[in-house]
Amino acid sequence: MRPAALLRSDKGLGTPGTDRKKAKPAVSPVIDDRKDHFVVRNGVRCAGVHLIVDLYDARHLDNIDRIDEALRRAVAAAGATLLHIHLHHFEPNGGVSGVAVLAESHISIHTWPEANYAALDVFMCGDAKPEACIPVLREAFKPNRIVVGEHLRGQGT
Amino acid sequence: MRPAALLRSDKGLGTPGTDRKKAKPAVSPVIDDRKDHFVVRNGVRCAGVHLIVDLYDARHLDNIDRIDEALRRAVAAAGATLLHIHLHHFEPNGGVSGVAVLAESHISIHTWPEANYAALDVFMCGDAKPEACIPVLREAFKPNRIVVGEHLRGQGT
Repeated sequence: MRPAALLRSDKGLGTPGTDRKKAKPAVSPVIDDRKDHFVVRNGVRCAGVHLIVDLYDARHLDNIDRIDEALRRAVAAAGATLLHIHLHHFEPNGGVSGVAVLAESHISIHTWPEANYAALDVFMCGDAKPEACIPVLREAFKPNRIVVGEHLRGQGT
Repeated sequence: MRPAALLRSDKGLGTPGTDRKKAKPAVSPVIDDRKDHFVVRNGVRCAGVHLIVDLYDARHLDNIDRIDEALRRAVAAAGATLLHIHLHHFEPNGGVSGVAVLAESHISIHTWPEANYAALDVFMCGDAKPEACIPVLREAFKPNRIVVGEHLRGQGT
């Protein structure tokens, strides 16, 4: 059974409070929960690798359970650490917007089921493997076309 | 007073449940809470405008309250609608990772205070003005250098 049931919002668009997690203050040994140390990619030192992923002619884009599962699988495939996941289901078109916040940065998704299009970002630092998310997304959403661009964020920092 | 106090997590990196908001099912008039209809930018029809924003030699990047306020101000400046905000404060370096999920897509932030660097994404659709976030970020974090790239997501959909 899923740990969090669907929440129904009657107002929906109020002023949300900030949902925060703060690591335990240092008492005895400090544990660094951050896993986004700088990486070297293609010989370039950078803060992280950011994949811009566009899915065209894709399926299941209004299925929030499938999207939830796909994001979790993508996180696992990349060897990343999930801190928080939030998905919002829009009506009446069924589109979903949401994000998985990671110890290594984030994965975001926005879907337009009426256009069979989804825009994802896979931003990962440290030892995580962002490219390992792509086969998971392909399997979950069966796009006829997938376009992946890469940014090396924070070069020269 | 802030509506949400800091949450202390003793385990931190467990398996988070999905935090979801589902709009109220259609009963009487259906209200479409989605505001990310397709836009035309520079003559190109697309699903949304995605700004890749890198702040170099920036300040206050370990100040979670300032980051929270900056994101909220950026959302307001853009004329966007905040659905959910989540910020994670890392220790011991004080970096912050988080996201504001919007009716028009999202703003994400990852900061590396030790490098005075922050990576933000401002992804907005519909009538929101993503470029209006830039002066807010400049004011909040005082970067000596700011690099903004633009992607038109979902062209041709």
